[in-house]
Amino acid sequence: MNRLVEQFSRLPGIGKRSAERLAFHLLKQSDEQVAELASAIGDLKRSTKQCSVCFNLTDADPCSVCTDPNRTQGLVMVVEQPSDLLSIEQTGLYKGVFHVLMGRVAPLDGIEPGDLTIAALLERVQNGLAGTSQGDGADRPRIEEVIIGTNPTLEGDGTALYLVEKLTALGVRVSRLARGLPYGSNMEMVSKAVLADAMDGRQPM
Amino acid sequence: MNRLVEQFSRLPGIGKRSAERLAFHLLKQSDEQVAELASAIGDLKRSTKQCSVCFNLTDADPCSVCTDPNRTQGLVMVVEQPSDLLSIEQTGLYKGVFHVLMGRVAPLDGIEPGDLTIAALLERVQNGLAGTSQGDGADRPRIEEVIIGTNPTLEGDGTALYLVEKLTALGVRVSRLARGLPYGSNMEMVSKAVLADAMDGRQPM
Repeated sequence: MNRLVEQFSRLPGIGKRSAERLAFHLLKQSDEQVAELASAIGDLKRSTKQCSVCFNLTDADPCSVCTDPNRTQGLVMVVEQPSDLLSIEQTGLYKGVFHVLMGRVAPLDGIEPGDLTIAALLERVQNGLAGTSQGDGADRPRIEEVIIGTNPTLEGDGTALYLVEKLTALGVRVSRLARGLPYGSNMEMVSKAVLADAMDGRQPM
Repeated sequence: MNRLVEQFSRLPGIGKRSAERLAFHLLKQSDEQVAELASAIGDLKRSTKQCSVCFNLTDADPCSVCTDPNRTQGLVMVVEQPSDLLSIEQTGLYKGVFHVLMGRVAPLDGIEPGDLTIAALLERVQNGLAGTSQGDGADRPRIEEVIIGTNPTLEGDGTALYLVEKLTALGVRVSRLARGLPYGSNMEMVSKAVLADAMDGRQPM
Protein backbone atom coordinates (compact mmCIF):
# COMPACT_ATOMS: atom_id res chain seq x y z
CA MET A 1 0.00 0.00 0.00
CA ASN A 2 2.73 2.50 0.94
CA ARG A 3 4.66 1.63 -2.21
CA LEU A 4 1.60 2.35 -4.41
CA VAL A 5 0.83 5.62 -2.62
CA GLU A 6 4.42 6.69 -3.21
CA GLN A 7 4.19 5.71 -6.89
CA PHE A 8 0.88 7.50 -7.39
CA SER A 9 2.10 10.68 -5.70
CA ARG A 10 4.95 10.93 -8.22
CA LEU A 11 2.40 11.51 -11.01
CA PRO A 12 1.77 15.11 -12.01
CA GLY A 13 -1.11 16.77 -10.15
CA ILE A 14 -1.48 13.97 -7.62
CA GLY A 15 -0.50 14.79 -4.06
CA LYS A 16 -0.14 12.42 -1.11
CA ARG A 17 -3.83 12.70 -0.14
CA SER A 18 -5.08 12.00 -3.66
CA ALA A 19 -2.64 9.11 -3.92
CA GLU A 20 -4.08 7.58 -0.76
CA ARG A 21 -7.61 8.08 -2.04
CA LEU A 22 -6.72 6.31 -5.30
CA ALA A 23 -5.10 3.43 -3.45
CA PHE A 24 -8.11 2.96 -1.15
CA HIS A 25 -10.39 3.10 -4.18
CA LEU A 26 -8.40 0.30 -5.84
CA LEU A 27 -8.60 -1.78 -2.63
CA LYS A 28 -12.39 -1.74 -2.97
CA GLN A 29 -12.35 -2.86 -6.62
CA SER A 30 -12.52 -6.47 -7.79
CA ASP A 31 -9.29 -8.40 -8.46
CA GLU A 32 -9.99 -8.31 -12.21
CA GLN A 33 -10.49 -4.57 -12.36
CA VAL A 34 -7.21 -3.98 -10.57
CA ALA A 35 -5.39 -6.51 -12.74
CA GLU A 36 -6.71 -4.75 -15.84
CA LEU A 37 -5.34 -1.39 -14.73
CA ALA A 38 -2.00 -2.96 -13.85
CA SER A 39 -1.72 -4.63 -17.24
CA ALA A 40 -2.76 -1.47 -19.12
CA ILE A 41 0.00 0.43 -17.35
CA GLY A 42 2.47 -2.39 -17.95
CA ASP A 43 1.65 -2.54 -21.68
CA LEU A 44 1.90 1.19 -22.22
CA LYS A 45 5.61 1.35 -22.94
CA ARG A 46 5.74 -2.08 -24.52
CA SER A 47 2.99 -1.47 -27.12
CA THR A 48 3.68 2.19 -27.88
CA LYS A 49 6.20 2.70 -30.63
CA GLN A 50 7.23 5.61 -32.75
CA CYS A 51 6.16 5.70 -36.38
CA SER A 52 9.35 5.42 -38.43
CA VAL A 53 7.96 7.88 -41.00
CA CYS A 54 6.41 10.71 -38.94
CA PHE A 55 7.62 9.87 -35.39
CA ASN A 56 4.10 10.04 -33.97
CA LEU A 57 3.38 7.62 -31.12
CA THR A 58 1.56 4.62 -32.52
CA ASP A 59 0.90 0.93 -32.00
CA ALA A 60 1.56 0.14 -35.68
CA ASP A 61 4.53 1.17 -37.81
CA PRO A 62 4.01 3.07 -40.10
CA CYS A 63 1.16 4.71 -38.19
CA SER A 64 -2.46 4.87 -39.32
CA VAL A 65 -2.10 8.49 -40.46
CA CYS A 66 0.93 7.78 -42.67
CA THR A 67 -0.78 4.80 -44.30
CA ASP A 68 -4.23 6.40 -44.74
CA PRO A 69 -4.96 6.36 -48.50
CA ASN A 70 -7.50 9.19 -48.10
CA ARG A 71 -4.89 11.67 -46.90
CA THR A 72 -2.74 13.93 -49.05
CA GLN A 73 0.70 12.42 -48.55
CA GLY A 74 2.33 15.37 -50.30
CA LEU A 75 1.29 17.84 -47.59
CA VAL A 76 3.35 17.51 -44.40
CA MET A 77 2.66 19.50 -41.23
CA VAL A 78 5.60 19.72 -38.82
CA VAL A 79 4.54 19.84 -35.15
CA GLU A 80 6.49 19.78 -31.90
CA GLN A 81 4.71 17.03 -29.96
CA PRO A 82 2.32 14.13 -30.48
CA SER A 83 -0.18 16.17 -28.43
CA ASP A 84 -0.05 18.95 -31.04
CA LEU A 85 -0.79 16.39 -33.76
CA LEU A 86 -3.77 15.26 -31.69
CA SER A 87 -5.06 18.86 -31.45
CA ILE A 88 -4.94 19.24 -35.22
CA GLU A 89 -6.53 15.82 -35.77
CA GLN A 90 -9.38 16.70 -33.41
CA THR A 91 -10.37 19.61 -35.65
CA GLY A 92 -11.06 17.07 -38.42
CA LEU A 93 -10.03 19.75 -40.93
CA TYR A 94 -6.53 18.67 -41.91
CA LYS A 95 -6.14 16.18 -44.73
CA GLY A 96 -2.37 15.97 -44.98
CA VAL A 97 0.18 14.00 -42.96
CA PHE A 98 2.56 15.00 -40.16
CA HIS A 99 6.11 15.06 -38.95
CA VAL A 100 6.60 15.16 -35.18
CA LEU A 101 9.82 16.87 -34.06
CA MET A 102 9.58 15.42 -30.52
CA GLY A 103 10.42 18.81 -29.02
CA ARG A 104 11.62 22.25 -30.08
CA VAL A 105 15.05 23.83 -30.39
CA ALA A 106 15.71 25.32 -26.94
CA PRO A 107 19.36 26.23 -26.47
CA LEU A 108 18.75 27.36 -22.87
CA ASP A 109 17.52 23.86 -22.01
CA GLY A 110 20.34 22.32 -24.02
CA ILE A 111 18.04 21.07 -26.79
CA GLU A 112 19.81 21.43 -30.14
CA PRO A 113 18.44 20.66 -33.62
CA GLY A 114 20.34 17.36 -33.53
CA ASP A 115 18.22 16.22 -30.55
CA LEU A 116 15.03 16.42 -32.62
CA THR A 117 13.84 14.47 -35.67
CA ILE A 118 14.91 17.25 -38.04
CA ALA A 119 17.48 15.19 -39.94
CA ALA A 120 14.80 12.58 -40.65
CA LEU A 121 12.41 15.33 -41.82
CA LEU A 122 14.98 16.74 -44.23
CA GLU A 123 15.73 13.27 -45.57
CA ARG A 124 12.01 12.58 -45.95
CA VAL A 125 11.48 15.82 -47.86
CA GLN A 126 14.59 15.26 -49.99
CA ASN A 127 13.37 11.79 -50.95
CA GLY A 128 9.85 13.11 -51.44
CA LEU A 129 11.07 15.83 -53.79
CA ALA A 130 13.21 13.47 -55.82
CA GLY A 131 10.44 10.90 -55.83
CA THR A 132 13.17 8.28 -55.64
CA SER A 133 12.47 4.77 -54.51
CA GLN A 134 14.53 3.54 -51.61
CA GLY A 135 16.41 0.32 -51.11
CA ASP A 136 13.16 -1.33 -50.07
CA GLY A 137 11.74 -0.61 -53.52
CA ALA A 138 8.83 1.49 -52.15
CA ASP A 139 7.98 4.69 -53.98
CA ARG A 140 8.13 7.69 -51.66
CA PRO A 141 5.16 10.06 -52.05
CA ARG A 142 5.97 13.35 -53.74
CA ILE A 143 6.09 16.15 -51.16
CA GLU A 144 4.45 19.36 -52.40
CA GLU A 145 4.39 21.53 -49.30
CA VAL A 146 5.63 21.56 -45.72
CA ILE A 147 3.51 23.48 -43.20
CA ILE A 148 5.42 24.63 -40.13
CA GLY A 149 3.13 24.08 -37.15
CA THR A 150 5.46 24.81 -34.25
CA ASN A 151 3.96 26.69 -31.32
CA PRO A 152 3.71 30.50 -31.49
CA THR A 153 6.32 30.99 -28.77
CA LEU A 154 9.91 32.20 -28.68
CA GLU A 155 11.31 28.69 -28.93
CA GLY A 156 8.70 27.59 -31.46
CA ASP A 157 9.63 30.60 -33.60
CA GLY A 158 13.33 29.79 -33.34
CA THR A 159 12.64 26.21 -34.40
CA ALA A 160 10.50 27.45 -37.29
CA LEU A 161 13.23 29.79 -38.53
CA TYR A 162 15.76 26.97 -38.48
CA LEU A 163 13.39 24.66 -40.36
CA VAL A 164 12.42 27.28 -42.96
CA GLU A 165 16.07 27.87 -43.77
CA LYS A 166 16.85 24.16 -44.16
CA LEU A 167 13.66 23.34 -46.06
CA THR A 168 13.76 26.21 -48.54
CA ALA A 169 17.36 25.21 -49.30
CA LEU A 170 15.92 21.87 -50.45
CA GLY A 171 13.56 23.74 -52.77
CA VAL A 172 10.24 22.59 -51.22
CA ARG A 173 7.31 24.96 -50.76
CA VAL A 174 7.16 26.01 -47.08
CA SER A 175 4.28 27.71 -45.29
CA ARG A 176 3.44 28.47 -41.70
CA LEU A 177 0.25 28.31 -39.64
CA ALA A 178 -1.30 31.77 -39.44
CA ARG A 179 -0.64 33.96 -36.43
CA GLY A 180 -3.00 36.66 -35.30
CA LEU A 181 -6.14 37.31 -33.33
CA PRO A 182 -7.58 34.11 -31.87
CA TYR A 183 -11.18 33.49 -32.90
CA GLY A 184 -13.62 34.60 -30.20
CA SER A 185 -11.20 37.01 -28.58
CA ASN A 186 -11.48 40.74 -28.21
CA MET A 187 -8.98 43.37 -29.37
CA GLU A 188 -9.08 44.94 -25.90
CA MET A 189 -7.96 41.72 -24.23
CA VAL A 190 -5.10 40.44 -26.37
CA SER A 191 -1.43 41.24 -25.85
CA LYS A 192 0.66 43.66 -27.86
CA ALA A 193 2.47 40.73 -29.52
CA VAL A 194 -0.85 39.32 -30.77
CA LEU A 195 -1.89 42.71 -32.19
CA ALA A 196 1.54 43.06 -33.82
CA ASP A 197 1.11 39.64 -35.48
CA ALA A 198 -2.40 40.60 -36.58
CA MET A 199 -1.16 43.79 -38.23
CA ASP A 200 1.95 42.20 -39.78
CA GLY A 201 -0.01 39.32 -41.22
CA ARG A 202 -3.03 41.23 -42.46
CA GLN A 203 -4.57 39.60 -45.46
CA PRO A 204 -6.09 41.13 -48.58
CA MET A 205 -9.84 40.60 -48.86
CA MET B 1 -24.65 60.35 1.58
CA ASN B 2 -27.38 57.89 0.63
CA ARG B 3 -27.78 59.56 -2.74
CA LEU B 4 -24.04 59.17 -3.49
CA VAL B 5 -23.99 55.53 -2.36
CA GLU B 6 -26.90 54.85 -4.68
CA GLN B 7 -25.12 56.62 -7.56
CA PHE B 8 -21.85 54.76 -6.97
CA SER B 9 -23.56 51.39 -6.75
CA ARG B 10 -24.99 51.90 -10.26
CA LEU B 11 -21.45 51.82 -11.68
CA PRO B 12 -20.29 48.49 -13.14
CA GLY B 13 -18.44 46.27 -10.66
CA ILE B 14 -19.35 48.38 -7.63
CA GLY B 15 -21.76 46.85 -5.16
CA LYS B 16 -23.49 48.51 -2.19
CA ARG B 17 -20.59 47.77 0.20
CA SER B 18 -17.95 49.20 -2.16
CA ALA B 19 -20.14 52.22 -2.78
CA GLU B 20 -20.32 52.88 0.96
CA ARG B 21 -16.57 52.47 1.27
CA LEU B 22 -16.00 54.98 -1.56
CA ALA B 23 -18.41 57.47 0.02
CA PHE B 24 -16.72 57.21 3.44
CA HIS B 25 -13.33 57.60 1.75
CA LEU B 26 -14.51 60.85 0.11
CA LEU B 27 -15.82 62.12 3.47
CA LYS B 28 -12.28 61.90 4.81
CA GLN B 29 -10.74 63.83 1.86
CA SER B 30 -10.25 67.59 1.75
CA ASP B 31 -12.93 69.81 0.20
CA GLU B 32 -10.65 70.54 -2.75
CA GLN B 33 -9.99 66.90 -3.55
CA VAL B 34 -13.69 66.13 -3.54
CA ALA B 35 -14.48 69.20 -5.64
CA GLU B 36 -11.85 68.10 -8.17
CA LEU B 37 -13.44 64.67 -8.58
CA ALA B 38 -16.88 66.22 -8.90
CA SER B 39 -15.70 68.63 -11.57
CA ALA B 40 -13.82 65.91 -13.49
CA ILE B 41 -17.00 63.84 -13.59
CA GLY B 42 -19.06 66.89 -14.54
CA ASP B 43 -16.70 67.83 -17.37
CA LEU B 44 -16.55 64.32 -18.83
CA LYS B 45 -19.56 64.58 -21.10
CA ARG B 46 -19.15 68.29 -21.74
CA SER B 47 -15.54 68.10 -22.95
CA THR B 48 -15.66 64.75 -24.75
CA LYS B 49 -16.75 65.01 -28.35
CA GLN B 50 -16.61 62.69 -31.30
CA CYS B 51 -14.06 63.38 -34.01
CA SER B 52 -16.07 64.32 -37.13
CA VAL B 53 -13.58 62.41 -39.32
CA CYS B 54 -12.94 59.11 -37.50
CA PHE B 55 -15.60 59.19 -34.73
CA ASN B 56 -13.04 58.52 -32.01
CA LEU B 57 -13.76 60.18 -28.67
CA THR B 58 -11.67 63.32 -28.42
CA ASP B 59 -11.47 66.74 -26.83
CA ALA B 60 -10.52 68.37 -30.15
CA ASP B 61 -12.21 68.03 -33.54
CA PRO B 62 -10.66 66.67 -35.73
CA CYS B 63 -8.84 64.49 -33.21
CA SER B 64 -5.09 64.42 -32.64
CA VAL B 65 -4.72 61.16 -34.64
CA CYS B 66 -6.53 62.52 -37.71
CA THR B 67 -4.44 65.70 -37.72
CA ASP B 68 -1.06 64.06 -36.97
CA PRO B 69 1.22 64.92 -39.92
CA ASN B 70 3.48 61.95 -39.12
CA ARG B 71 0.73 59.40 -39.75
CA THR B 72 -0.15 57.81 -43.08
CA GLN B 73 -3.53 59.36 -43.79
CA GLY B 74 -4.09 56.97 -46.69
CA LEU B 75 -4.21 53.88 -44.43
CA VAL B 76 -7.46 53.60 -42.47
CA MET B 77 -8.11 50.90 -39.86
CA VAL B 78 -11.78 50.29 -39.09
CA VAL B 79 -12.42 49.28 -35.46
CA GLU B 80 -15.58 48.70 -33.47
CA GLN B 81 -14.97 50.84 -30.38
CA PRO B 82 -12.73 53.64 -29.12
CA SER B 83 -11.27 51.05 -26.72
CA ASP B 84 -10.10 48.95 -29.70
CA LEU B 85 -8.40 52.02 -31.15
CA LEU B 86 -6.68 52.48 -27.80
CA SER B 87 -5.42 48.87 -27.86
CA ILE B 88 -3.88 49.36 -31.29
CA GLU B 89 -2.39 52.73 -30.29
CA GLN B 90 -0.80 51.19 -27.21
CA THR B 91 1.22 48.81 -29.40
CA GLY B 92 2.90 51.89 -30.93
CA LEU B 93 3.20 49.91 -34.17
CA TYR B 94 0.42 51.36 -36.30
CA LYS B 95 1.17 54.45 -38.33
CA GLY B 96 -2.14 54.91 -40.15
CA VAL B 97 -5.41 56.50 -39.05
CA PHE B 98 -8.71 55.02 -37.87
CA HIS B 99 -12.42 54.89 -38.36
CA VAL B 100 -14.50 53.95 -35.31
CA LEU B 101 -17.79 52.21 -36.11
CA MET B 102 -19.19 52.80 -32.59
CA GLY B 103 -20.42 49.20 -32.44
CA ARG B 104 -20.85 46.17 -34.67
CA VAL B 105 -23.71 44.88 -36.78
CA ALA B 106 -25.73 42.68 -34.40
CA PRO B 107 -29.18 41.89 -35.78
CA LEU B 108 -30.11 39.93 -32.64
CA ASP B 109 -29.56 43.07 -30.56
CA GLY B 110 -31.32 45.18 -33.17
CA ILE B 111 -28.11 46.91 -34.31
CA GLU B 112 -28.24 47.41 -38.08
CA PRO B 113 -25.52 48.87 -40.35
CA GLY B 114 -27.45 52.16 -40.31
CA ASP B 115 -26.91 52.49 -36.55
CA LEU B 116 -23.12 52.60 -37.03
CA THR B 117 -20.83 55.13 -38.71
CA ILE B 118 -20.63 53.02 -41.88
CA ALA B 119 -22.22 55.61 -44.18
CA ALA B 120 -19.63 58.15 -43.03
CA LEU B 121 -16.84 55.62 -43.65
CA LEU B 122 -18.03 54.95 -47.19
CA GLU B 123 -18.29 58.66 -47.89
CA ARG B 124 -14.81 59.23 -46.43
CA VAL B 125 -13.35 56.48 -48.61
CA GLN B 126 -15.26 57.67 -51.69
CA ASN B 127 -13.92 61.20 -51.22
CA GLY B 128 -10.47 59.83 -50.41
CA LEU B 129 -10.40 57.80 -53.62
CA ALA B 130 -11.57 60.66 -55.79
CA GLY B 131 -9.15 62.99 -54.06
CA THR B 132 -11.79 65.68 -54.47
CA SER B 133 -11.79 68.80 -52.41
CA GLN B 134 -14.96 69.47 -50.49
CA GLY B 135 -17.03 72.59 -50.15
CA ASP B 136 -14.66 73.77 -47.45
CA GLY B 137 -11.83 73.76 -49.99
CA ALA B 138 -9.72 71.26 -48.01
CA ASP B 139 -8.01 68.48 -49.94
CA ARG B 140 -9.03 65.09 -48.66
CA PRO B 141 -6.10 62.66 -48.19
CA ARG B 142 -5.96 59.92 -50.80
CA ILE B 143 -7.04 56.60 -49.24
CA GLU B 144 -4.86 53.69 -50.34
CA GLU B 145 -6.06 50.86 -48.12
CA VAL B 146 -8.73 50.08 -45.54
CA ILE B 147 -7.80 47.51 -42.86
CA ILE B 148 -10.80 45.81 -41.28
CA GLY B 149 -10.06 45.55 -37.56
CA THR B 150 -13.38 44.30 -36.22
CA ASN B 151 -13.20 41.71 -33.45
CA PRO B 152 -12.69 38.04 -34.36
CA THR B 153 -16.19 37.09 -33.22
CA LEU B 154 -19.40 36.07 -34.98
CA GLU B 155 -20.74 39.62 -35.00
CA GLY B 156 -17.35 41.13 -35.81
CA ASP B 157 -17.12 38.76 -38.78
CA GLY B 158 -20.59 39.68 -39.96
CA THR B 159 -19.71 43.35 -39.76
CA ALA B 160 -16.45 42.69 -41.64
CA LEU B 161 -18.25 40.86 -44.45
CA TYR B 162 -20.70 43.72 -44.85
CA LEU B 163 -17.86 46.27 -44.93
CA VAL B 164 -15.73 44.27 -47.38
CA GLU B 165 -18.64 44.08 -49.82
CA LYS B 166 -19.37 47.81 -49.63
CA LEU B 167 -15.71 48.87 -49.72
CA THR B 168 -14.58 46.66 -52.58
CA ALA B 169 -17.55 48.00 -54.57
CA LEU B 170 -15.92 51.44 -54.18
CA GLY B 171 -12.68 50.02 -55.60
CA VAL B 172 -10.44 50.60 -52.57
CA ARG B 173 -7.87 48.02 -51.43
CA VAL B 174 -9.27 46.15 -48.40
CA SER B 175 -7.37 43.93 -45.99
CA ARG B 176 -8.13 42.34 -42.67
CA LEU B 177 -6.16 41.84 -39.46
CA ALA B 178 -4.68 38.36 -39.40
CA ARG B 179 -6.47 35.57 -37.58
CA GLY B 180 -4.68 32.58 -36.19
CA LEU B 181 -2.67 31.31 -33.26
CA PRO B 182 -2.17 34.00 -30.63
CA TYR B 183 1.50 34.65 -29.83
CA GLY B 184 2.56 32.84 -26.67
CA SER B 185 -0.19 30.24 -26.86
CA ASN B 186 0.10 26.51 -27.29
CA MET B 187 -1.51 24.36 -29.98
CA GLU B 188 -2.83 22.05 -27.28
CA MET B 189 -4.72 24.84 -25.55
CA VAL B 190 -6.43 26.72 -28.37
CA SER B 191 -9.92 26.03 -29.68
CA LYS B 192 -10.82 24.24 -32.88
CA ALA B 193 -11.89 27.55 -34.45
CA VAL B 194 -8.44 29.04 -33.78
CA LEU B 195 -6.69 26.03 -35.35
CA ALA B 196 -9.06 26.24 -38.33
CA ASP B 197 -8.13 29.92 -38.81
CA ALA B 198 -4.44 29.04 -38.48
CA MET B 199 -4.68 26.40 -41.19
CA ASP B 200 -6.89 28.47 -43.51
CA GLY B 201 -4.66 31.49 -43.25
CA ARG B 202 -1.30 29.76 -43.47
CA GLN B 203 1.29 31.96 -45.04
CA PRO B 204 4.09 31.11 -47.45
CA MET B 205 7.56 31.52 -45.93
